[in-house]
Amino acid sequence: MRAIEVEDGESRPKLYGYWRSSTSYRIRIALNLKGLTYDYVPVNLKEGEQMGEAYRAINPHGTVPLLDTEEGQFTQSLAILDWLEVHYPTPSFLPKTNAALCRDLYYAVATEIHAPNNLPILKYLKSEFGADQAALEAWYQTWIHKTFAPVEARLAAHNWSGEDLPFGQPTLLEIVLIPQVYNARRWNTDLSMFPYIEKIDAACIDLDAFDKARPENQIDAS
Amino acid sequence: MRAIEVEDGESRPKLYGYWRSSTSYRIRIALNLKGLTYDYVPVNLKEGEQMGEAYRAINPHGTVPLLDTEEGQFTQSLAILDWLEVHYPTPSFLPKTNAALCRDLYYAVATEIHAPNNLPILKYLKSEFGADQAALEAWYQTWIHKTFAPVEARLAAHNWSGEDLPFGQPTLLEIVLIPQVYNARRWNTDLSMFPYIEKIDAACIDLDAFDKARPENQIDAS
Repeated sequence: MRAIEVEDGESRPKLYGYWRSSTSYRIRIALNLKGLTYDYVPVNLKEGEQMGEAYRAINPHGTVPLLDTEEGQFTQSLAILDWLEVHYPTPSFLPKTNAALCRDLYYAVATEIHAPNNLPILKYLKSEFGADQAALEAWYQTWIHKTFAPVEARLAAHNWSGEDLPFGQPTLLEIVLIPQVYNARRWNTDLSMFPYIEKIDAACIDLDAFDKARPENQIDAS
Repeated sequence: MRAIEVEDGESRPKLYGYWRSSTSYRIRIALNLKGLTYDYVPVNLKEGEQMGEAYRAINPHGTVPLLDTEEGQFTQSLAILDWLEVHYPTPSFLPKTNAALCRDLYYAVATEIHAPNNLPILKYLKSEFGADQAALEAWYQTWIHKTFAPVEARLAAHNWSGEDLPFGQPTLLEIVLIPQVYNARRWNTDLSMFPYIEKIDAACIDLDAFDKARPENQIDAS
């Protein structure tokens, strides 16, 4: 893994994250794919540290991830991915061919599932609608299925053998898909109707950049 | 408004959308800002046309917008914005300075509010949790406030007079923010604590590209 090129007085990027946050997981994969080293600052979401005064002084959104770089702070995982791709173009997060399809699937997975399944929403369902664990699981699984189904159909229609990865390399799609598959399993989601998505997941877990980024391999895993 | 440059046998891009869909609204603004003409195909979300067999044969996601171009179909509004920026770089959707802040605010507004407040979620809250209109309004307003509050704080901290627009031109931020302000008002959201956001909205409604894109100015408005 190459170190980020730093000049005198510059520091490595600092990633504020949480081991089980799927958007933090995206950024760990992305930094690893670019071969960048970084400092990891755990923010304990379970204990509400993200809403505390100290953290909100750093990030008024009260969210993770946050990437602190010499060029500014980014609080949005998609903004961080854009920034990494522009500043460290090699290896690219996009394939040479079928980049349009790749981006379209990437945004479907990145934007449709995380927001409705995020912690503040689940807490609201519990407190305002009295949702129990079974109701939360049904909710969670509904939004995974709603997006995974058309993504699976388009992967099946795409000219891909099912071997290796659909675009021949890890891309933006895998960066956001693998953390969602991890979440789906945590929430007991049946993925058997998504064989192409399962093939992608199986191909990625063998890659060092993805393995190092896994929640269980973080210093704040518990 | 310049026509999209077309060669023999090529056609103008076709936008499948719905007048009140906030993500369709984004794309209408964006096409107008780039000075592109397009064919508009209304998909009646109120009558469930997006879930019908005919439309799902075009778009397996069953969502709008969809932009049909000579280079392929895009089903994700953020993918369409990327494509437009790459293929029609002038005028740019990004400012020359403070582009990093602009992108970060853009993604916050684009990804955090629409998904939890989207039609399928509201239907689910009604059918599975028995949410009434008051409960739906409270839900809707919660997610607008949750993102607008830190966005407002960062606009206030940003070196901006409050005149014109925060980045000196319409950007990705305004493209996604104006449709959310429209939705916020439809859902009776109090925006008085967001004076900077209201200033942006007021500045944009005077611009032709935004005015032409307003839901009420579409052929399928009812």
